[in-house]
Amino acid sequence: MEKKIQTIATLRTHSFLVNLDEVLLRDGSSAKRVRIDHPQAAAVVPFLSEREILLVRQFRYALGRETLEIPAGKLDRSEKHEECAGRELVEETGYEAGSLTLLYTYAPAIGYSNELIHIYAGRNLRKLGTAIDQREISSIETYDIEAIRSLIRERRIVDGKTLLGLALLGLLPGVD
Amino acid sequence: MEKKIQTIATLRTHSFLVNLDEVLLRDGSSAKRVRIDHPQAAAVVPFLSEREILLVRQFRYALGRETLEIPAGKLDRSEKHEECAGRELVEETGYEAGSLTLLYTYAPAIGYSNELIHIYAGRNLRKLGTAIDQREISSIETYDIEAIRSLIRERRIVDGKTLLGLALLGLLPGVD
Repeated sequence: MEKKIQTIATLRTHSFLVNLDEVLLRDGSSAKRVRIDHPQAAAVVPFLSEREILLVRQFRYALGRETLEIPAGKLDRSEKHEECAGRELVEETGYEAGSLTLLYTYAPAIGYSNELIHIYAGRNLRKLGTAIDQREISSIETYDIEAIRSLIRERRIVDGKTLLGLALLGLLPGVD
Repeated sequence: MEKKIQTIATLRTHSFLVNLDEVLLRDGSSAKRVRIDHPQAAAVVPFLSEREILLVRQFRYALGRETLEIPAGKLDRSEKHEECAGRELVEETGYEAGSLTLLYTYAPAIGYSNELIHIYAGRNLRKLGTAIDQREISSIETYDIEAIRSLIRERRIVDGKTLLGLALLGLLPGVD
């Protein structure tokens, strides 16, 4: 157990809060901990067909480069995570999922964030006429499962939620 | 591409830096982005035998609860990630790995952190006489592979690096 002694400083964005806390450790000493208070997120592995998956290419400021990812985003206030998964899929790809199945809920960065990501499989996709969020998405790309396995063998997918989503569906190649 | 306009504020711990930046988006508008400047981390899936894995139970302040995880930690200054993996395994479990195999390097939280985690498989473990870091570790537990699969089916492992490490070794059960 680690108990908060005090919050030393706080940063705030429109969607989350970063606290720098002083905490009391189990042995009586103290330490500083960063704690991001995150609204949670949802992600979707979107199956365009039985053998084809949609990925989005996106510039990630924190990483300083583009990544290839499954569609995902933060929950809006009072939004359910399944709604969020469906909304983000539409906003980032223009496709609506006829079915969304929750695969797993996990914590991506437990050292400094309370973020939880709810990962879904999206099936029975239907193209809508809506515009894509071009402020964030560079391109939408279709890959068959073998092509995705090749990308992973070549270490060209680095995003954790994408790797785990594919793994939960049995689509990760052997890398050992 | 998103370009930094300015750093608005910064938080600092002994191991990393949190910047709140104002950035210029592709459409000419601006937004705030959190960017954790992280030293990278290494993690190990430690095989006590062909069918048994060591996990550590640890209180995670950011999450406000205990989690069951593979041993892991941040790189010390100028440390190589394989050294870090070996050192963290010793510090958290008291075992040294005769062999460490890099499975994958991934980014756990690309929305706000440049952290990379290097995941290893650790084999040929040998018990050392050294003391465990009891400020962080509550207990060290041995699970056979079927028991780990049960924990995952029951959603009792929530840590991303642990789930992905097991997945990369083909140890994730079907959850779909």
